[in-house]
Amino acid sequence: MWRELRPIGRHPDSRGYRRFAWTGADAECRGWFKEQAEARGLSYEVDRNGNQWAWLGDPDAGDAVVTGSHLDSVPDGGAFDGPLGVVSSFAALDELRGRNAQFSKPLAVVNFGDEEGARFGLACVGSRLAAGQLTVEQAHRLTDGDGITLPKAMEAAGYDPDAIGADPERLGRIGALVELHVEQGRALDLSGDPVGIASAIWPHGRWRFDFRGEANHAGTTRLVDRRDPMLSYAETVLAARREAELAGAVATFGKIVVEPNGVNAIPSLVRGWLDSRAADQESLDQVVGGVERAAREYAAAHGVDLDVVRESFTPVVEFDHALRDELARILGKATDITVPVLGTGAGHDAGILSGSIPTAMLFVRNPTGVSHSPAEFAAEDDCVAGVLALADVLEGLACR
Amino acid sequence: MWRELRPIGRHPDSRGYRRFAWTGADAECRGWFKEQAEARGLSYEVDRNGNQWAWLGDPDAGDAVVTGSHLDSVPDGGAFDGPLGVVSSFAALDELRGRNAQFSKPLAVVNFGDEEGARFGLACVGSRLAAGQLTVEQAHRLTDGDGITLPKAMEAAGYDPDAIGADPERLGRIGALVELHVEQGRALDLSGDPVGIASAIWPHGRWRFDFRGEANHAGTTRLVDRRDPMLSYAETVLAARREAELAGAVATFGKIVVEPNGVNAIPSLVRGWLDSRAADQESLDQVVGGVERAAREYAAAHGVDLDVVRESFTPVVEFDHALRDELARILGKATDITVPVLGTGAGHDAGILSGSIPTAMLFVRNPTGVSHSPAEFAAEDDCVAGVLALADVLEGLACR
Repeated sequence: MWRELRPIGRHPDSRGYRRFAWTGADAECRGWFKEQAEARGLSYEVDRNGNQWAWLGDPDAGDAVVTGSHLDSVPDGGAFDGPLGVVSSFAALDELRGRNAQFSKPLAVVNFGDEEGARFGLACVGSRLAAGQLTVEQAHRLTDGDGITLPKAMEAAGYDPDAIGADPERLGRIGALVELHVEQGRALDLSGDPVGIASAIWPHGRWRFDFRGEANHAGTTRLVDRRDPMLSYAETVLAARREAELAGAVATFGKIVVEPNGVNAIPSLVRGWLDSRAADQESLDQVVGGVERAAREYAAAHGVDLDVVRESFTPVVEFDHALRDELARILGKATDITVPVLGTGAGHDAGILSGSIPTAMLFVRNPTGVSHSPAEFAAEDDCVAGVLALADVLEGLACR
Repeated sequence: MWRELRPIGRHPDSRGYRRFAWTGADAECRGWFKEQAEARGLSYEVDRNGNQWAWLGDPDAGDAVVTGSHLDSVPDGGAFDGPLGVVSSFAALDELRGRNAQFSKPLAVVNFGDEEGARFGLACVGSRLAAGQLTVEQAHRLTDGDGITLPKAMEAAGYDPDAIGADPERLGRIGALVELHVEQGRALDLSGDPVGIASAIWPHGRWRFDFRGEANHAGTTRLVDRRDPMLSYAETVLAARREAELAGAVATFGKIVVEPNGVNAIPSLVRGWLDSRAADQESLDQVVGGVERAAREYAAAHGVDLDVVRESFTPVVEFDHALRDELARILGKATDITVPVLGTGAGHDAGILSGSIPTAMLFVRNPTGVSHSPAEFAAEDDCVAGVLALADVLEGLACR
C-alpha cells in the first residue's frame, strides 16, 4: 500500500509532497483509496462533501466504528501526516481479518477531503462541512491563489459542488471515530513510547498583522524620513518568540507578503501572519495580547499604521472522555503498559467532529518531531505498533 | 505633453505607474516620444539597444549636446522619476526656440530603455549595453519573473535583439550629456533651492542573505527544537538599521522570499535582500561588514545556515568635474545665485555613461523626498525652474 502511495504528488526537487485538494495529485490519492477499498471487498462511497468511505458491514445499521485520516498535504509536506492514518486503517482491518475478528457493528475507513487547507486557506473543509461548522455560503466564497473558487475546483475534479453541506444523517450513523496520526512533536520520543492517546487539541488561531508605512527609494530616503514597516515587523517577530517563551506556548511568523517587494524600495506594506497555540485559553490570550501590544508600540515609533485581524480561531477541543478512557483501557489490557495521554497543538478532522460525535486519536512516535516537511519521519516498528494498537481499539469497540 | 503621458501604464487601484521595459505601457510611452520628436521636426531614431533619440542638427557633426532621461518605471512608481527629465528636455528645446537660440552644435533628446530594471532585475540596461558595461551574453541571460528572456521580450516589442551591444560610435559623437531628474531625497527641500547640480553617485550594492533553517509544524514544534530562519532574519533587519545609523549611510531590507510561506509552517528558507549605500566606500564596507557579522552570529545562535551573496555593486561615480563646474558657472550667471551641488544615493544612466563621456545631472526639488511611489511629487513652479535651468545649460553648452 505504502509503496503505491509514495510517489503521488511528490515534487522532484524538494522531495516534499504537494497533494492539494481537487488537483491531479489529490485525484491520484483518491484513486488509490478506491482501489484499496475494492481490493478488500469493502463498499465504497463518496459523501456529499467529497469525503471517501469504505464500509465493512451495513452503514445503516448505526453505531458504526470509523477510522481514517486524510491524504492531502501542506506545500512540500511529509509522507506521514495524513496518509499514515489511512494506510494504518486498511492495515488494521487486514490484521483483524487475520485474527478472524467477528464484528457486531459496522466498520468504515474514511479519507477526509482538504484537511490541510493548503489550497483554499481553511483547514478541515471536508469535516467542517459535514459537521455544519462551515456553511455552504462560506465554502462557496473560498478561493485559491489563482482565483479559482472551491465550487469550480470541485467541479473540475468531477464532484458536484451543489451537493455540499451539513450531513447529520451520515454522522448520526457513527458511534465512534478514531483517527491515527503521526505525532507532530516529540512528546512520545521524550517519554519513550511508540503510541499515545490524545487528550485535547490546544486552542489556536491565526492573526494577520498589516504594517502600513510609506513606499520610498531605498537609496535616497534619509533614515529619519522613513516610515519603514519592515522594521516594526522584525521587532514583532522577535516579540512573538519572547511572549511564547514566557507563556510556555508556541508562536510563529511563517508567512509574509511585502509590497512592492523590490530590492531598492522601502516597503509600503508588510503583512505577516501570527500562528499561536497554547495549552489553555488564558496562556494563548497572554501571548497574542502581548505580541499585539508590542507591535502597536513599534509601529507607532516608526510612524507605521497597524491593523490586526483574527483570521481564524479554534477553542480548546477536549476529546470525548469516555471514549478516551475506553481506548486507554483496551490498550492497557492488550499491551500491559499504561499508554500515555498527551495534548497537541495541531488541528485534526477528529477535533472538528468532536462536537458532533465521540472522537479519539492515537499518535505514533515521531523521533525528530519534524512535521509539515519532507524530513517528517516515523520508524517502521512504531508504524507497526500503531497499526496493532488501532486494530486492538477497533476490535475492542466493534466486537463488543 | 505631460497630460498625454500621464495616463499611460497607471494602475487604477494603486494610482502608481507600471511601465516595465518592452511591455504595452512601455510601447505607448515610446510612441509618445516619437510623436513629440516628429511634432518638433526633430529627426527620430532608435539605436541598436532600443534607446530613442530625437536630433536637432546633424548627429554626425560630433560634439553633440544631449539631454534626456527614461520613461519606464519601478512597480507602482511615481509620475516624475524619469518622465520629468524627458518632458523637461523637449520643453527646454521649445524654450530655446522661443529665445531664437542659434546652435553651434547638434542637440539631442534621449529616452534610455529599461532604466529601472523592474522587469529583468538589472538597472540601466540601455545605457549599460551602449557603454559596453553589460555584455551581449549577459544581456541574453536576463530573464523576467515569467521566464521570458530579454531577447524574447525585445523581439515581442518589435525590436531586434541580435543588434544589441556596445555602441562606441554613437557615444563618440556626444560632447556632453546632461540628465535632469526629480531629486529622490530632501536635500534641496532642506536647503530651500528649486534646482541643484549632482556631484557624485554614492557607491551602492545589493546583497542577498539566505537564511536556511528547518521547515516544521508551527503548532507542535517546541521552541527549543526549532531552527527558525525568520528569527535571524528579523534580528538582521534591525542590525542593518543600527549599522546604517552609525555610519550615516542607508541600509534597507525591502524584498523577501519565504519558503514554504505557510501560516502554520516554520520556514525552511528566508531570503532577504540588503540594499545599502553610503557617501564613501569605507562607510559602505563598515555597514555591510557589520550587518553580515551580526547576521552570522544570529544564524549560529538559532542553528540556521547563512549564505551572503553580493548580487551587484557600483563604486562611487564622480560626475565630470569640468562639466559640473561649467553648469555651475552657467546657472550662477543666469540666476545670480549659487546653485547647490549634492550627492545622491540613486543610480542613473548619466552615472553609467560617465565612464564613457562627460556627463552631468540637474536635480529638481522634491518637497517630501518621496520617490518610487505614487506619492512622488514636484511642484509646478520647481518643474518650470528645472526647464529654464536646463534651457540655460543647453544654450550655454551648444551655442558657444
